[in-house]
Amino acid sequence: MKVAIFFGSKSDTEVMRGAANCLKEFGVEYKAFILSAHRVPEKLEETLKEIEKEGYEVIIAGAGLAAHLPGVIASQTILPVIGVPVKAAIEGLDALLSIVQMPKSIPVATVGINNSYNAGMLAVQMLSLKYPEIKEKLVDFRINMKKKFIEENGQGVEL
Amino acid sequence: MKVAIFFGSKSDTEVMRGAANCLKEFGVEYKAFILSAHRVPEKLEETLKEIEKEGYEVIIAGAGLAAHLPGVIASQTILPVIGVPVKAAIEGLDALLSIVQMPKSIPVATVGINNSYNAGMLAVQMLSLKYPEIKEKLVDFRINMKKKFIEENGQGVEL
Amino acid sequence: MKVAIFFGSKSDTEVMRGAANCLKEFGVEYKAFILSAHRVPEKLEETLKEIEKEGYEVIIAGAGLAAHLPGVIASQTILPVIGVPVKAAIEGLDALLSIVQMPKSIPVATVGINNSYNAGMLAVQMLSLKYPEIKEKLVDFRINMKKKFIEENGQGVEL
Amino acid sequence: MKVAIFFGSKSDTEVMRGAANCLKEFGVEYKAFILSAHRVPEKLEETLKEIEKEGYEVIIAGAGLAAHLPGVIASQTILPVIGVPVKAAIEGLDALLSIVQMPKSIPVATVGINNSYNAGMLAVQMLSLKYPEIKEKLVDFRINMKKKFIEENGQGVEL
Amino acid sequence: MKVAIFFGSKSDTEVMRGAANCLKEFGVEYKAFILSAHRVPEKLEETLKEIEKEGYEVIIAGAGLAAHLPGVIASQTILPVIGVPVKAAIEGLDALLSIVQMPKSIPVATVGINNSYNAGMLAVQMLSLKYPEIKEKLVDFRINMKKKFIEENGQGVEL
Amino acid sequence: MKVAIFFGSKSDTEVMRGAANCLKEFGVEYKAFILSAHRVPEKLEETLKEIEKEGYEVIIAGAGLAAHLPGVIASQTILPVIGVPVKAAIEGLDALLSIVQMPKSIPVATVGINNSYNAGMLAVQMLSLKYPEIKEKLVDFRINMKKKFIEENGQGVEL
Amino acid sequence: MKVAIFFGSKSDTEVMRGAANCLKEFGVEYKAFILSAHRVPEKLEETLKEIEKEGYEVIIAGAGLAAHLPGVIASQTILPVIGVPVKAAIEGLDALLSIVQMPKSIPVATVGINNSYNAGMLAVQMLSLKYPEIKEKLVDFRINMKKKFIEENGQGVEL
Amino acid sequence: MKVAIFFGSKSDTEVMRGAANCLKEFGVEYKAFILSAHRVPEKLEETLKEIEKEGYEVIIAGAGLAAHLPGVIASQTILPVIGVPVKAAIEGLDALLSIVQMPKSIPVATVGINNSYNAGMLAVQMLSLKYPEIKEKLVDFRINMKKKFIEENGQGVEL
Repeated sequence: MKVAIFFGSKSDTEVMRGAANCLKEFGVEYKAFILSAHRVPEKLEETLKEIEKEGYEVIIAGAGLAAHLPGVIASQTILPVIGVPVKAAIEGLDALLSIVQMPKSIPVATVGINNSYNAGMLAVQMLSLKYPEIKEKLVDFRINMKKKFIEENGQGVEL
Repeated sequence: MKVAIFFGSKSDTEVMRGAANCLKEFGVEYKAFILSAHRVPEKLEETLKEIEKEGYEVIIAGAGLAAHLPGVIASQTILPVIGVPVKAAIEGLDALLSIVQMPKSIPVATVGINNSYNAGMLAVQMLSLKYPEIKEKLVDFRINMKKKFIEENGQGVEL
Repeated sequence: MKVAIFFGSKSDTEVMRGAANCLKEFGVEYKAFILSAHRVPEKLEETLKEIEKEGYEVIIAGAGLAAHLPGVIASQTILPVIGVPVKAAIEGLDALLSIVQMPKSIPVATVGINNSYNAGMLAVQMLSLKYPEIKEKLVDFRINMKKKFIEENGQGVEL
Repeated sequence: MKVAIFFGSKSDTEVMRGAANCLKEFGVEYKAFILSAHRVPEKLEETLKEIEKEGYEVIIAGAGLAAHLPGVIASQTILPVIGVPVKAAIEGLDALLSIVQMPKSIPVATVGINNSYNAGMLAVQMLSLKYPEIKEKLVDFRINMKKKFIEENGQGVEL
Repeated sequence: MKVAIFFGSKSDTEVMRGAANCLKEFGVEYKAFILSAHRVPEKLEETLKEIEKEGYEVIIAGAGLAAHLPGVIASQTILPVIGVPVKAAIEGLDALLSIVQMPKSIPVATVGINNSYNAGMLAVQMLSLKYPEIKEKLVDFRINMKKKFIEENGQGVEL
Repeated sequence: MKVAIFFGSKSDTEVMRGAANCLKEFGVEYKAFILSAHRVPEKLEETLKEIEKEGYEVIIAGAGLAAHLPGVIASQTILPVIGVPVKAAIEGLDALLSIVQMPKSIPVATVGINNSYNAGMLAVQMLSLKYPEIKEKLVDFRINMKKKFIEENGQGVEL
Repeated sequence: MKVAIFFGSKSDTEVMRGAANCLKEFGVEYKAFILSAHRVPEKLEETLKEIEKEGYEVIIAGAGLAAHLPGVIASQTILPVIGVPVKAAIEGLDALLSIVQMPKSIPVATVGINNSYNAGMLAVQMLSLKYPEIKEKLVDFRINMKKKFIEENGQGVEL
Repeated sequence: MKVAIFFGSKSDTEVMRGAANCLKEFGVEYKAFILSAHRVPEKLEETLKEIEKEGYEVIIAGAGLAAHLPGVIASQTILPVIGVPVKAAIEGLDALLSIVQMPKSIPVATVGINNSYNAGMLAVQMLSLKYPEIKEKLVDFRINMKKKFIEENGQGVEL
């Protein structure tokens, strides 16, 4: 049960850490790669083949600007690809549209701008279809999230 | 191996048919429901509980305008939810942002505006993690897609 | 004569204080709750039922990103719901569209981005339909606002 | 129990009819005026004073482009004003922003683009604070809306 | 030869100073007023009548958000009105659209976001139609602007 | 008392006719030129010099897309230039921004998208500074506009 | 002297014909290929290698939605790549941003939305650096364009 | 082998340095000019004629706001013109649209917002058509870029 995280530039590291944090919470193994669809397309292709051989099951890919990385990966694998639009210009709208508006047959499962934690969560949800222990953890996560939310906020708030 | 398709209004039917078409191509069983997050929240909640009991594994949800349906569903289940922004006003940007910009912990896997076929494909990819026969079909689908594309367009085109 | 204020996250507190400040100015009782439509939907439902029983008459709800909270509340009550788009990304446009573009029959009375003071004022105006003392206060408020504005600015300004 | 409907141009008539239709459904008396904030400001002022004297309790105002009508009305009355952005250019975004982004203290309760039916509904909700018979009708409306929605769509849909 | 400058809030002062600076450069007399279309509509009306009587010939009006001030002024005078969109939210796009998209027959001469200096220049150009001494100053201004620009930048620049 | 109307392409003719219609109503002489800033810059320069010599006093310029025509004209004359953004793509937003966002010192008086009638009206208002007979006509125009508006709409409208 | 034209879908044919028309006018040889970056990445790679071997010197690439084709091509060749955003959704803004916002070092020379004729012209301009006969044709083209424009429009136009 | 760099204001210097840096890396001679299309159109025209005589082969032009400089240059030369949208307001969208949406026949090769390095790279690619030594350097550049990228990032990254 392994997830591969790709992003196109060292400057995306902080944004993408959220995905890793989520996977850690669920005890899902992951590996992260900085690989640009535009600068090292051959290395990207090669790495994708390797991670498929090594049994990775879900891919998370983050990119900014004309964010082609998630779509280019999706065109080279049948694994589900989760795209994270990284805000680098015009409020991240360029990245969002470059990722979400994929053509027919090659989807990218897009999450919110800079919201890589949700990419991790979506990967976990996908894995939970197959791994009952992950499903259980998800159920627990929701229960705890609610409990914690209510503990912190449930009595109304001073305003 | 069953997928549930939800959408908020009869007027979304044509847009959402693409998801059903994709699932049919892969032989994935599905059931479709018109259920509004705003008009019949209790019925939605009830139906979600039923489809979970009946073993549905992925949910596709399409909506337009202030498109809350996918997010509201995602808050009530741990199944992965795929959101389809339906274009009903301002080029579908309201629906896209209402679906993709979910808060931390409750993601919706968003596809392109009106692109419900890709929602179907994403559901198939998720199921392929668990079902090897679906994985094989996906491999074949890609091979055939490429073959057909090249047969039709491979020799260059008159312009 | 009581108003309930809801918002989805502790980080919205500063923005939402404006609503409370306005209600205080008019001597309208209020209570504030941090309750997320996505993280604690059951607690939200329960709280809504309680505040209805306790005779709250208007609801103010603020949220950012895919801001479903005001619409989800509106779907569960017939009390008028006032929505405050909170700026958390893309200049608050995602929140604005997620709140204002509600489907037929379930409106949210939307005010400007981060402008929770105006949500308070709108609540006061609604209450003034029923409570003559509030109407009087509104008349006074306008007179004083004008007087103060003219005192401060009425003689022209050095530029 | 009377609602005044204002709009700035004969060309907005079809869009604004939705507000009237909603008010009719709830048996709320209304009167409609075509009055432009820019072309006949004095007549607008005069009419506003009249309707206040005649006991109108809520105002609905629709306008397109640089849609000042709702805000100009709000500056001249303490009655709650509901604004309907009418789509006349750039997808109605100019009207939406011109209506919703009101300055501190003078709110306009904004509904979705071209969605005047919801303006009617919001007026009804406001009136229900004061008139128990309207509150009852609202409860019934919701029950019937749900019943009808489920009758039509409750059994799942062929896709 | 006098120009009146209006703006809706003390917080616009710095932005609007550019208009005054330009008028000073051309020796055009001006007076500035902080007057809100929404908060003190009667005082605005009264002031407009006064400045018309006093022979003011051009009006500059700046506002942010739902920027109604220039349009409301334009509806109450036949003097040419120059509108300055002041950036207060969403990059000033709300103010720009609220000012420029005026309905048929009541134009506002709109300049760039926060660019009040250009509003001053436009006022000067309008006055130059009537006042030959202003026309001469404009010719000189352009000559000097070019000369200065070329002196500073004409020899190429180190990069 | 003459106004020159420029636009960049035969396809803008219908949109620009509104400016001519307004000028005709006020008995203002005008001449129209199709001249592109990009395709015939020398001819544009030459024509601008001619119309200046012939005593034209205001220039109206309409253009779509990357609408440089009004700004390029403004850089070559000190006459006031009124810009009309013509909708040719992305709802006319490209033309609006290309016209209104002029740099310091070279303003273009921008009117609404496709609203060339208002460009005519603005030209008339500018001329009225100098020509008392135009001022009188403007006063009459407003009186008649109001009278006609009220005759047509003043009694309320059936909805 | 050969130009290769790529586009991602048969539905882009009409839009892309403009590029071919321009190249024909200048007598530049070209070949067109329908090849999707997402559906047939290997075939695209292979074809790019072939056209490089065959001595093609400039590449034009058009695509809509999440328009990755021009950028993916640019990442696999050092030939200059000209990108044409094709309008397929949200007014072509998704395609424009997906093409123009390329990361450092891998540019795409972007032209206007649907404006493939300009892509052809840009290719011609690039070729003119090397081929004097193309340079001459460009000079003639401009002269004729101006002559024709002035013949058609030079005498002013009836409005 | 010389490239001319133009920009409209001293404040664009930092943004435009990227173009110079790229040209230096490739040993391409360049000269930079601050020349505004609006403030010194005659000087611009004159300078363009000079640089053409001196054998400059590609022009890079950067501008913000209503960014006319690249288009105005393109209308006065047949040399290829590369446009750099400089962010000065509304996230640089005004500059992008003012540059990229050029009319038929007069293209500007547009690069990303503030991305002048890519303008330099595009100029280098254009020159490589004619100068084999530049072509070789481009091949080397890509090889080194890839090598360096992989050295830095190729082993996966800690997250």
